[in-house]
Amino acid sequence: MTPEPSARRRGRKSAAAQAPKRQVNYRQLKNPFPLMEVFPAHQIADMHETALNILEELGMKVLLPQARRIYAKGGARVDDDAEMVYIGRDMVEAALATAPRSITCRAGARERDITLELGSLVFQAGAGAPNATDLERGRRPGSARDYLEYLQLTHHFDVFHMISPQVEPQDVPVHLRHYFTTEAQMTRTDKFPFIFSRGTPQVMDCFEMIRDLRGLTDAEFMAEPRCYTIINTNSPRTLDIPMAQGLIDFARHGQVSIVTPFTLMGAMAPITVAGAITLSHAEVLAAITLTQLAKPGAPVCYGTFTSNVDMKSGAPAFGTPAHFQASLAAGQLARFLGLPWRSAAGSASNCNDVQAANENQMGLWGCLMAGATVIIHAAGWLEGGLSVSYEKLITDAEVLNMIAELCAGAQAGTEEIGYASALTQVEPQGHFFAAPQTMDRYSTEFYEPVVHDYANFGTWTERGALDANSRATRVWKDILAHDNRPQTDETRAEALQAFIAKRTAEGGAPPES
Amino acid sequence: MTPEPSARRRGRKSAAAQAPKRQVNYRQLKNPFPLMEVFPAHQIADMHETALNILEELGMKVLLPQARRIYAKGGARVDDDAEMVYIGRDMVEAALATAPRSITCRAGARERDITLELGSLVFQAGAGAPNATDLERGRRPGSARDYLEYLQLTHHFDVFHMISPQVEPQDVPVHLRHYFTTEAQMTRTDKFPFIFSRGTPQVMDCFEMIRDLRGLTDAEFMAEPRCYTIINTNSPRTLDIPMAQGLIDFARHGQVSIVTPFTLMGAMAPITVAGAITLSHAEVLAAITLTQLAKPGAPVCYGTFTSNVDMKSGAPAFGTPAHFQASLAAGQLARFLGLPWRSAAGSASNCNDVQAANENQMGLWGCLMAGATVIIHAAGWLEGGLSVSYEKLITDAEVLNMIAELCAGAQAGTEEIGYASALTQVEPQGHFFAAPQTMDRYSTEFYEPVVHDYANFGTWTERGALDANSRATRVWKDILAHDNRPQTDETRAEALQAFIAKRTAEGGAPPES
Repeated sequence: MTPEPSARRRGRKSAAAQAPKRQVNYRQLKNPFPLMEVFPAHQIADMHETALNILEELGMKVLLPQARRIYAKGGARVDDDAEMVYIGRDMVEAALATAPRSITCRAGARERDITLELGSLVFQAGAGAPNATDLERGRRPGSARDYLEYLQLTHHFDVFHMISPQVEPQDVPVHLRHYFTTEAQMTRTDKFPFIFSRGTPQVMDCFEMIRDLRGLTDAEFMAEPRCYTIINTNSPRTLDIPMAQGLIDFARHGQVSIVTPFTLMGAMAPITVAGAITLSHAEVLAAITLTQLAKPGAPVCYGTFTSNVDMKSGAPAFGTPAHFQASLAAGQLARFLGLPWRSAAGSASNCNDVQAANENQMGLWGCLMAGATVIIHAAGWLEGGLSVSYEKLITDAEVLNMIAELCAGAQAGTEEIGYASALTQVEPQGHFFAAPQTMDRYSTEFYEPVVHDYANFGTWTERGALDANSRATRVWKDILAHDNRPQTDETRAEALQAFIAKRTAEGGAPPES
Repeated sequence: MTPEPSARRRGRKSAAAQAPKRQVNYRQLKNPFPLMEVFPAHQIADMHETALNILEELGMKVLLPQARRIYAKGGARVDDDAEMVYIGRDMVEAALATAPRSITCRAGARERDITLELGSLVFQAGAGAPNATDLERGRRPGSARDYLEYLQLTHHFDVFHMISPQVEPQDVPVHLRHYFTTEAQMTRTDKFPFIFSRGTPQVMDCFEMIRDLRGLTDAEFMAEPRCYTIINTNSPRTLDIPMAQGLIDFARHGQVSIVTPFTLMGAMAPITVAGAITLSHAEVLAAITLTQLAKPGAPVCYGTFTSNVDMKSGAPAFGTPAHFQASLAAGQLARFLGLPWRSAAGSASNCNDVQAANENQMGLWGCLMAGATVIIHAAGWLEGGLSVSYEKLITDAEVLNMIAELCAGAQAGTEEIGYASALTQVEPQGHFFAAPQTMDRYSTEFYEPVVHDYANFGTWTERGALDANSRATRVWKDILAHDNRPQTDETRAEALQAFIAKRTAEGGAPPES
């Protein structure tokens, strides 16, 4: 039953150079996986009703006076002393009626555009980490260099569709950091960029940079999404100042807010999946309502990131059954509303080991079967987000590539079944190496891995017995060794630098809190 | 947003000892995952038709004269010189009409019984490996000790429902090896046992051993399945002597054959998923037909194990997109027939690294979404089956436990949503550690991992920075340190040993080929 690779290889060596390569579009994906439900429809309706009760009866604490005024103008009962906002279900329903079902995101090149809607599938690399780690340099506080390298790595893989918040460049002063990260995203990738909501002054700087680098008028910028932010509520039931500002600013400028309460069951959320997701749902509804009050029709994406704590230690856990079920429940609620939505994979492991792989993939399948539109932390995320790993980015990208391959599907037509071109061509106990069907397809039929290695034990041992992690180091170093940035209009890039120099001289824009 | 574990931990330490433990039945599982289709129904029908054409027009090579006689008696056209059998579609249809849709397998204890039917979910550890490996002793040819240890480890985890062919005890002479493996399975576990089909004499020995140790009459033994075998056709289109004997012997004795062509796309099968699965399907139909001709109604399980070769090296690959799709296609064909069926996960990696984890889990999800009844190589399988790893058995068992947890589902009733017991109990920015709902559930709500570690980076580093692999070594050593064998009737165990001594003195039973 063992194939005879050496004979076959010799025969094809000369042809291999001219052989066509497999071409699969990883850039716009539709989720091919069937949707899974964890709760029956009537319980989902109960959760939604309970969330409406939470907003109406228990209320949200909203720290930004401007946001409270917007809610009040929209009909909410507001207690300014307590900073509490009580949102009626009629307000929520009105907001859900204007929130768009489909959001077309304009990247730096048309082939990088993505559409956020139920059914589409968008991956983001692990994000928001204060630290970076790799096998060569170890774990260190995130730096500008790490930010740029991680950007180059995520730009390399088509399967990362949006630039994530990545790793924090801690050596760049906080009042200038948004210039650095936005310039990098504008000049080193043409994928859809991310902007932190760290207060209106920073956000306005970033909008201006993107508008000008893309060569847009104000009206053109505001007409279509050119960037996005992530809004984390402070669970339970709190919307802080920069987050509320972000919701308002992004809505009014036609840019995308992805609303994601980050809730850990048993800590800042109820211990049950049902309770935690009900709370998360209420908080998202509050945020969506604010965006639609700020500007009806503003692009906003439902989201959740709910996992459990380990009740022995209180530490966050990821890729657990509860995490999986929370994704399923959130997916049901997002479909209940009809909105695109974001979920998350991720790992609690402290290094890129088997636990890290298993947790991330378990979380990923939860998101896929939940029908998530955007899956963040789909690669590279360790320590529950305290670090991003270069090697893990590579090994997880392998998994995402395989998911993208599954999105492409397969056929079982006459040619593929191959009765004439394969099945009748080979005698019992023979082999199909030389069948016409094989010869036609050998260079294009299968996905070729980035880091997975199929050498046998002997060959693998002779080559140094490198595990996937060590091989991943070679992969990322090779990617970083080659400049892969897209072309940028030189005049606009110079103008961008001039803008940054001017704003830096003016003192930049400190984050708000 | 960070929980306060130390405060909470102190408060609960004394209560923890009395706290109830989470109890989830992992022993009988129903697949909760939605089924995925890779091909439209009409293409599945085309594949089935093509398989019938293969059997009718191209034929199967059947090396056992007795089997050819049975086929001939059933109406097949037989060419004895060429050892070819041409099986009409009417014969296949008649066989499919008598093959059972549901097979209840009687283990050594009623709570270990399993039912093979569409919808049930049964896991087996990695199997059939010539080598064993672990981090303490390295990679070595499988031995009696390895066999017993691997048996003890798989017995330990409820989520392994059947004993797999495990690791080959190469230091036990081949004419006595079946006594060793059967005695071990009869006295060290009460799970459903496996018997190799290595010729009628060995199989009859094993049936006798199982019958007597279970305290059954011949009629009782033959009335219900007490063991199973795995039948690998020799693809393409060949049924060898021991496999044909196994199909006949197991059928006539009412024991289970799981028929699994092991086909690698591009090597012993067509390069396409559709072609490879069509070939596999034809071979399974031929084998099922033989069982039903031997004894109508005999328990037989459909099966497939199809992955692709790496076309660069000719080496087998596992956990690939093509492997995933092949599982989906096989699942559609099994449902087309209505039969329980077996699929397989597995890894091509040479050590228990991130590749091994990712491949195994990718293959596993393919099987789960394909609706496989039995998933073999679900844990521990490395090098495409050339070794089983003790550590990988542990780390994969963690994944399977989590799958079993997902089988148990979740609820979103009033208590779980917890409006009164949790959501109204916590102020904005507060925490749920002390909410009544949390206090009621903290010791039972979440799955507790076997080897995954949620310690933060500092604590983990202080404890030695052990990766999951190294921690898995501790886990299996701890399991092996405790005798976990179930009670066996002493008189019957002595009789078993006497039988083995007698048969050994008589020369045992060499395998047939």
